[in-house]
Amino acid sequence: MMQKVLVIHGPNLNLLGEREPGVYGNTTFADLNRMILSRAEGLGLECEIFQSNHEGAIIDKLHAARTTFDGVIINAGAYTHYSYAIHDAIHDIRIPCVEVHISNIYARDEFRSHSVLSPVCAGTIAGFGINGYFLALQALSEM
Amino acid sequence: MMQKVLVIHGPNLNLLGEREPGVYGNTTFADLNRMILSRAEGLGLECEIFQSNHEGAIIDKLHAARTTFDGVIINAGAYTHYSYAIHDAIHDIRIPCVEVHISNIYARDEFRSHSVLSPVCAGTIAGFGINGYFLALQALSEM
Amino acid sequence: MMQKVLVIHGPNLNLLGEREPGVYGNTTFADLNRMILSRAEGLGLECEIFQSNHEGAIIDKLHAARTTFDGVIINAGAYTHYSYAIHDAIHDIRIPCVEVHISNIYARDEFRSHSVLSPVCAGTIAGFGINGYFLALQALSEM
Amino acid sequence: MMQKVLVIHGPNLNLLGEREPGVYGNTTFADLNRMILSRAEGLGLECEIFQSNHEGAIIDKLHAARTTFDGVIINAGAYTHYSYAIHDAIHDIRIPCVEVHISNIYARDEFRSHSVLSPVCAGTIAGFGINGYFLALQALSEM
Amino acid sequence: MMQKVLVIHGPNLNLLGEREPGVYGNTTFADLNRMILSRAEGLGLECEIFQSNHEGAIIDKLHAARTTFDGVIINAGAYTHYSYAIHDAIHDIRIPCVEVHISNIYARDEFRSHSVLSPVCAGTIAGFGINGYFLALQALSEM
Amino acid sequence: MMQKVLVIHGPNLNLLGEREPGVYGNTTFADLNRMILSRAEGLGLECEIFQSNHEGAIIDKLHAARTTFDGVIINAGAYTHYSYAIHDAIHDIRIPCVEVHISNIYARDEFRSHSVLSPVCAGTIAGFGINGYFLALQALSEM
Amino acid sequence: MMQKVLVIHGPNLNLLGEREPGVYGNTTFADLNRMILSRAEGLGLECEIFQSNHEGAIIDKLHAARTTFDGVIINAGAYTHYSYAIHDAIHDIRIPCVEVHISNIYARDEFRSHSVLSPVCAGTIAGFGINGYFLALQALSEM
Amino acid sequence: MMQKVLVIHGPNLNLLGEREPGVYGNTTFADLNRMILSRAEGLGLECEIFQSNHEGAIIDKLHAARTTFDGVIINAGAYTHYSYAIHDAIHDIRIPCVEVHISNIYARDEFRSHSVLSPVCAGTIAGFGINGYFLALQALSEM
Amino acid sequence: MMQKVLVIHGPNLNLLGEREPGVYGNTTFADLNRMILSRAEGLGLECEIFQSNHEGAIIDKLHAARTTFDGVIINAGAYTHYSYAIHDAIHDIRIPCVEVHISNIYARDEFRSHSVLSPVCAGTIAGFGINGYFLALQALSEM
Amino acid sequence: MMQKVLVIHGPNLNLLGEREPGVYGNTTFADLNRMILSRAEGLGLECEIFQSNHEGAIIDKLHAARTTFDGVIINAGAYTHYSYAIHDAIHDIRIPCVEVHISNIYARDEFRSHSVLSPVCAGTIAGFGINGYFLALQALSEM
Amino acid sequence: MMQKVLVIHGPNLNLLGEREPGVYGNTTFADLNRMILSRAEGLGLECEIFQSNHEGAIIDKLHAARTTFDGVIINAGAYTHYSYAIHDAIHDIRIPCVEVHISNIYARDEFRSHSVLSPVCAGTIAGFGINGYFLALQALSEM
Amino acid sequence: MMQKVLVIHGPNLNLLGEREPGVYGNTTFADLNRMILSRAEGLGLECEIFQSNHEGAIIDKLHAARTTFDGVIINAGAYTHYSYAIHDAIHDIRIPCVEVHISNIYARDEFRSHSVLSPVCAGTIAGFGINGYFLALQALSEM
Repeated sequence: MMQKVLVIHGPNLNLLGEREPGVYGNTTFADLNRMILSRAEGLGLECEIFQSNHEGAIIDKLHAARTTFDGVIINAGAYTHYSYAIHDAIHDIRIPCVEVHISNIYARDEFRSHSVLSPVCAGTIAGFGINGYFLALQALSEM
Repeated sequence: MMQKVLVIHGPNLNLLGEREPGVYGNTTFADLNRMILSRAEGLGLECEIFQSNHEGAIIDKLHAARTTFDGVIINAGAYTHYSYAIHDAIHDIRIPCVEVHISNIYARDEFRSHSVLSPVCAGTIAGFGINGYFLALQALSEM
Repeated sequence: MMQKVLVIHGPNLNLLGEREPGVYGNTTFADLNRMILSRAEGLGLECEIFQSNHEGAIIDKLHAARTTFDGVIINAGAYTHYSYAIHDAIHDIRIPCVEVHISNIYARDEFRSHSVLSPVCAGTIAGFGINGYFLALQALSEM
Repeated sequence: MMQKVLVIHGPNLNLLGEREPGVYGNTTFADLNRMILSRAEGLGLECEIFQSNHEGAIIDKLHAARTTFDGVIINAGAYTHYSYAIHDAIHDIRIPCVEVHISNIYARDEFRSHSVLSPVCAGTIAGFGINGYFLALQALSEM
Repeated sequence: MMQKVLVIHGPNLNLLGEREPGVYGNTTFADLNRMILSRAEGLGLECEIFQSNHEGAIIDKLHAARTTFDGVIINAGAYTHYSYAIHDAIHDIRIPCVEVHISNIYARDEFRSHSVLSPVCAGTIAGFGINGYFLALQALSEM
Repeated sequence: MMQKVLVIHGPNLNLLGEREPGVYGNTTFADLNRMILSRAEGLGLECEIFQSNHEGAIIDKLHAARTTFDGVIINAGAYTHYSYAIHDAIHDIRIPCVEVHISNIYARDEFRSHSVLSPVCAGTIAGFGINGYFLALQALSEM
Repeated sequence: MMQKVLVIHGPNLNLLGEREPGVYGNTTFADLNRMILSRAEGLGLECEIFQSNHEGAIIDKLHAARTTFDGVIINAGAYTHYSYAIHDAIHDIRIPCVEVHISNIYARDEFRSHSVLSPVCAGTIAGFGINGYFLALQALSEM
Repeated sequence: MMQKVLVIHGPNLNLLGEREPGVYGNTTFADLNRMILSRAEGLGLECEIFQSNHEGAIIDKLHAARTTFDGVIINAGAYTHYSYAIHDAIHDIRIPCVEVHISNIYARDEFRSHSVLSPVCAGTIAGFGINGYFLALQALSEM
Repeated sequence: MMQKVLVIHGPNLNLLGEREPGVYGNTTFADLNRMILSRAEGLGLECEIFQSNHEGAIIDKLHAARTTFDGVIINAGAYTHYSYAIHDAIHDIRIPCVEVHISNIYARDEFRSHSVLSPVCAGTIAGFGINGYFLALQALSEM
Repeated sequence: MMQKVLVIHGPNLNLLGEREPGVYGNTTFADLNRMILSRAEGLGLECEIFQSNHEGAIIDKLHAARTTFDGVIINAGAYTHYSYAIHDAIHDIRIPCVEVHISNIYARDEFRSHSVLSPVCAGTIAGFGINGYFLALQALSEM
Repeated sequence: MMQKVLVIHGPNLNLLGEREPGVYGNTTFADLNRMILSRAEGLGLECEIFQSNHEGAIIDKLHAARTTFDGVIINAGAYTHYSYAIHDAIHDIRIPCVEVHISNIYARDEFRSHSVLSPVCAGTIAGFGINGYFLALQALSEM
Repeated sequence: MMQKVLVIHGPNLNLLGEREPGVYGNTTFADLNRMILSRAEGLGLECEIFQSNHEGAIIDKLHAARTTFDGVIINAGAYTHYSYAIHDAIHDIRIPCVEVHISNIYARDEFRSHSVLSPVCAGTIAGFGINGYFLALQALSEM
């Protein structure tokens, strides 16, 4: 049963609220994280949040997660589109990962319409704004 | 406020439960629809379900929906990958559509990894099995 | 000599006037058809108008046209970009078809810049708004 | 054992005899069907023939076939080249389908040289004119 | 209101009547121009005709046109397919240009099926033989 | 009238029965040839069988066939996918060739889904196991 | 030592100030040239300015430059993207050329993101507005 | 019978002897032309030589040639690789053109390995240095 | 007004002077930085220099810069060609960045001719050796 | 000095005179070889002629040639388009090879427009019919 | 002479033994390193082992290696397929690097079949399981 | 246990020592074979060496090997890049094959960077000069 969930925010997501409000909304990164923790609690999930701009740090964290978490929610930012190293890490840790994108990545730049992580994630949720994180929590809680 | 939701199932989804259980699970199509209606009710949403193998019938239904529904959940089956006519219909009716896929379309055949509907949908949910429909209901109910 | 002309409107054109006014203008679908009939009459052409969102229905209509009409004007909407079945129907009925597009399809989305119907049409007229239909009537009347 | 066979003709095949005689020969559609029924009878096969220009109608028919026929012969016309919905239907009904093309599709337009149906058909027969249907009947009768 | 129209013929069009009669017809270049002037007069349009095989000369003429003409009809011949310099000129002069092609460019060589000018032209007319110029005059006269 | 038929087996087909039984079945190469000869006899056809792993030897044999055989059945193995030299030989000898593939080449590796020989063959039969050879004999006998 | 510099403006740059002010700014072409001459003088450089819409005239000018100038600054406008003839001329005259673009060509239309001239230029400066010309003068003066 | 031959040199060939001696040799352009005239005389051919850096001027010259010359030798320089306007001119004048390249264009830059002129030329000679012109004269003299 | 400028050197640039002198020159990394600081001082700019081989560290530095610097000069080394994460960081910090390349990246390996950073940089300077940094300082100082 | 020349004919050229006379002319293979020997004699060249349909035999012959011939003329037939093994052999034997094609390969099927041998041949002659061999002899005799 | 060797393991290799045993075998990462050290000792090589999931850390290590090691063995994990930054580092440090892959990367996912590191490595060894490291040690020891 | 090993050299390798010494070294083919036999003996392996320029002969040899050898080392020369027939033979004989390349094929011509044999070989060794054969022997001896 899903009890502990790790939420990973990738590069530039720490700027949330400053970055393209038209695309990402006005909620700040701190706001978002408070809301995630609150929702997780409401679903009876223990939740840790991690952000890094470093591809390697995200991989290290995923490795560490495999013995201490039951599921992962990951918004890998731009690494989504080329990090086969994160792809391998998700595949290797063998716990379910849910991929979240705040914006509809399929309706933006060409390079954003392809995710190298999707094939190894349990599922993908994109385009629902920050609500995507809450849907992902619910999806994990029901696995 | 979201009150009435239309759920559209595209081609071959009526075979659910018979079609590749390894990929789509054992729930039958009738089971699925019962569960969708029940979940919708729990969320205070009025819900209608429609299935067709005809591209044109799906377009007709989308047109009709624009004055009678507040949101649409669509799993367009294989039309997902080439029906620019459904793409245009979704775009033109100007009510939010959520795209759902039972399987992780990004991890299967090459042709399934691209959706021509994603760019005009509010959001996409893929890979969570039939739970994707319930997440979509929730996503719409919170819009 | 050209005496009877069939005008075929493809998917989503019935929403004309509601659909992207910036691209397609404010004239409604009913207005457009009245204007087409009036122009045809002015050119001494008998004219029937047909709309369907169904690829198969458009093919059926084209087949029926081959013994009852002298020419066809077709705006196949999004089917323009992938319906090789309509392509074959136009080819097989052996009466001249004129392809019309209200907007400049070459200046919009990448997928709209290629028509699979153009190679089997007598000619193509694009970008002149609804005036394109009137130019097509004139083109047919002078064939 | 193979006893009942469904023959499906896709879009524009009803025009056979009128359509490009240089490519498809002079036999009319009615002639062809009579010959198919006669050959089937000679092989001890019960045979039904269905033609539609509607992609959805072909899918409906394939679904219906799964409990009433032992095999299918399909010439999907131009849908051969893009209908992933028919591809899925053939895959899902789990009875053997034989793909037939009257002309040598590999020697004509570029777009005709690729069939999206071949990968899910039991086998493919192309280029033998209407004799291809008879070879397909024989192939099914020997399965 | 449209009063003065410039017609630009690009490279090799001066050979009209000698060049591939099967594709371009038997009318000579002089015949064509007489007919254009006559049609323009009938529509109450003042009309000048210009031909050059020089890409730069066509650009110079377009520049000159921006203060002395209300509209342009251009058949840029083979420059249609690669002259981004003419594309920029049409864009920069900010008066409506109509692109005309005598033959159905979409049904000939692969390289002819793409026009780099279409995206900056008001509209495109192709495949109607020399009648395309008259339709273009009418289209401009009604703008 | 078809009287003498040459059957050409290309590279690695001599290993039949040892090679991937899951794909090619358990019949040995010798078995297959006996069955082909027997079927040909039943159809009143004189038949010679030739196997080589050498592209040049296959071409030499095709050349020799043009004065001594009425038809050819060829399974060119992997040469199917790149031997334009065999393509030219089939084209030049001007007697009908039928292309046979034991497996469904369109459902296997990407490189196997394209045959450079198909455009110059009278017809193609693929996916019916060794029965494909018998269907080809019948197809030739009815030409 | 760099003493005499030729500045070449390609097609449509003579419209500067009229052409897309949002992209190219409000400075007129005459203003720009005055500023270039003044800057050159400040750097102790003798400077000639040349503009043409003719690809051939630009090549002729480059040829003439090879014995009378020490360096060239070239903004070849749209010829940048396809004129291999100018590419060869720059290569052959063997004096340093600096490529300048007023706008950020890498952030505009797809076709503008590739320069066939860059590989044979000493260096490229793009995106700084008309200041790019002054930076180019400085770059040349320091060579 | 071949009596009068026009030799056209395209852009940058006037720099011959200065341009990349490693690739094009040390003979100057004047030397080359003297040798061409002498060889032509030896073959009993009247010969005119024309050079221009202007695409339009080459087209004008080709047009003029169609009534005064029996054959053309053309080295179109870099226009070889993109001038569909010269392609059309060669096609339209209907006198045999031989394409010559001094260097082996297939062994240099990628962009040089494709000639848009080859399909409409009688033949192509490349890689023999300036001897290619003499071989072309001989080829024409024997037509 | 531009007062404080951050210069970012990406991966491997710390080896300058050791790395391919034919391409990058003999100046050492320390020399280069001394020269940059001196030039900046001459232009009245306060300047900080940062080098890292870590993609994440470059992103962290860009984030930090958004409140403490007025402009950025970035030579992202090989990250130029694939780091969409740095692309997003440059975009998000909303202060002008100038992209510098020591060598002419358009004249080297294929993979180096495309920069994913260019579209979000204010401008690009490439091919001028280390002088590119000084031109970038000047460009920024004049913004 | 060139004294001994080897002429290699590749696959299917032995059928010359039978094979597509519209493309290759009526001269038989024996006629052609007699004419080649006669022309070679006229040029003072000793000449041997070799034909094989075997790629390996052509390579063996090229290897043997490197110590006994001064030059090679090769028409590799369809191997032209994919035999990197012959490409390597030509490269390795280090004596000049001239590539000949009877037809204009650039004006036929797409696959024939690319030669993998051209980059390692001294020069290429295509489109002059069998005269190409004589031009090649002359070209070699003048090396 | 080769005396000191650095072995670099890239991302996710630290999970060896846990990660896809079917592909990578059961040996743990610690086992592997012990075996490498033992083999190196047997070959008289001093050996250091380094693992990191951080692209930048691998580059830093490579830089440090250039003055303290005689050779490098690198298995860059997924960075193999896109890290041009590691490519540059290997190139710049100018000591021989041997690329090792445990699995046969050419027989797995499409994206794994291309290594951006191979062109700058001395050699590549792939598909031999962990034995690849020992072969690499031997290869280095014999350089 | 590995006891008998077959070494296959493909086309042009018999020229070793004469062929591009800069790429392949000065060792002659006879030298290489002596060294291979000596190394094999040192490893307790019985070894046979085979060379052919004929694709078919290499396939024949591989077939023969399946009952008489325990492993194969193959350097297929240029056939590496397109011989799907050798690919199939390696696959079908079901004994381990090791692919060897003397040079680093990934750092040379584009066409050499892809091997169609790699996916069916046990492993690949490239870039170590003739030492690659010795490493392959060792790899086989340890299987």
